[in-house]
Amino acid sequence: MPALDALSRVRIVLSRTSHPGNIGSAARAMKTMGISQLRLVAPKSFPHEEANALASGALDVLEGSCVYETLEEALGDAVLAVGFSSRGRDLSHPPRALRDAAPLILASAAASPVALVFGNETFGLTNEELARCQMLAVIPANPAYASLNLAAAVQVACYELATAASAFTPPAEPERTPATVEEIEAFHAHLERAMIASGFLDPAMPKRLMERMRRLFARAGLEREEVQFLRGMLASFEKQAKSKT
Amino acid sequence: MPALDALSRVRIVLSRTSHPGNIGSAARAMKTMGISQLRLVAPKSFPHEEANALASGALDVLEGSCVYETLEEALGDAVLAVGFSSRGRDLSHPPRALRDAAPLILASAAASPVALVFGNETFGLTNEELARCQMLAVIPANPAYASLNLAAAVQVACYELATAASAFTPPAEPERTPATVEEIEAFHAHLERAMIASGFLDPAMPKRLMERMRRLFARAGLEREEVQFLRGMLASFEKQAKSKT
Repeated sequence: MPALDALSRVRIVLSRTSHPGNIGSAARAMKTMGISQLRLVAPKSFPHEEANALASGALDVLEGSCVYETLEEALGDAVLAVGFSSRGRDLSHPPRALRDAAPLILASAAASPVALVFGNETFGLTNEELARCQMLAVIPANPAYASLNLAAAVQVACYELATAASAFTPPAEPERTPATVEEIEAFHAHLERAMIASGFLDPAMPKRLMERMRRLFARAGLEREEVQFLRGMLASFEKQAKSKT
Repeated sequence: MPALDALSRVRIVLSRTSHPGNIGSAARAMKTMGISQLRLVAPKSFPHEEANALASGALDVLEGSCVYETLEEALGDAVLAVGFSSRGRDLSHPPRALRDAAPLILASAAASPVALVFGNETFGLTNEELARCQMLAVIPANPAYASLNLAAAVQVACYELATAASAFTPPAEPERTPATVEEIEAFHAHLERAMIASGFLDPAMPKRLMERMRRLFARAGLEREEVQFLRGMLASFEKQAKSKT
């Protein structure tokens, strides 16, 4: 699948991460979106048991990660480095909303490695780090509190890339056997008989009741099994009424 | 702003959450996207210091949350309950990809409260809980590992809603003062003189060098200040050359 192929060329670069738990959570976030290349620049504590615990089923991403001393080394042969920041920078590239950046990032990743770069939890990317990037991506957020957790930002970024790539489709609709028009008509006839018998529907004053019932069930899109149990229910009401009289 | 107004009617309902840290992280994720109504159904440990620690700057969301015994109570007067699941369910509603669900959820939230419902970390939503929902949303994910962390799923869901609502715009482009055409022409003339003087450009064999320079600087979109320092740089080269000769 070309989409997964492009995602395989996306590197997540975490620079100077303070909390090892965030590295583990980021690995988990990446794997859920089909991204597995993790590069760490001078992490404060790594490897660390907390990183392993929070990686959960993405321990392989953590184990496959590499540690670098500088951002430059971590970027390696990437043709595009995208810095993530929660705010615009005076001296930097114009910020691009993540959703607009995603297709551009994917286009680069179609042929060559690209890097998404996330800075320290407290300070974000330094100006020096941002200067190594060719694009500045921003996750639009509440100006009163725009501080996404590091792994949460990685999750959103990877989700946007996977979605832009249409990498994963939601599970298909469960198999349904729709009722035929004939079955539906038989049901409505049954319903009408039962409502007349119970006195709920007065054939002399129908008040468009059947029309409204038809509209409701049309909206629901009846399945064959549903018609069967609805008619079973009607039959049980009819039987109950007969046993009473 | 009508977008923020709709987000104010979105409730996040966490059902039977095991880890208090996830409740705190979810509160933080919500607040970054302008969503603040948190409802908890029978949490295992709450309030809890770990929840407070991970909520970070979203302690207000945590403190404003309410605890309920049943999902039914937590849904309250919501007109739409959206269950989140990492997989389709046989007997349930057809799953809808989150991105497709977001505008529908927002449309309901324009006038009435809606609830996004997230189940237990390990087991997800029970069939009974899903039966209380009118819509099933899925975050498309890696079929080999679709297990998003609870707070990460809340982050992605809130991000999609805020983005669908265009609630927050990325920071504006930093103020720029573009150079005038006159300034740019003067720069190119200066550049040409300097390149001829240095011998890099042979006026007899120009090889379209100036054309390529023009194309490069046009693509960059020069600012006034940039023209000034580029010309300063050229002047320094010229001066250095003169002092040598």
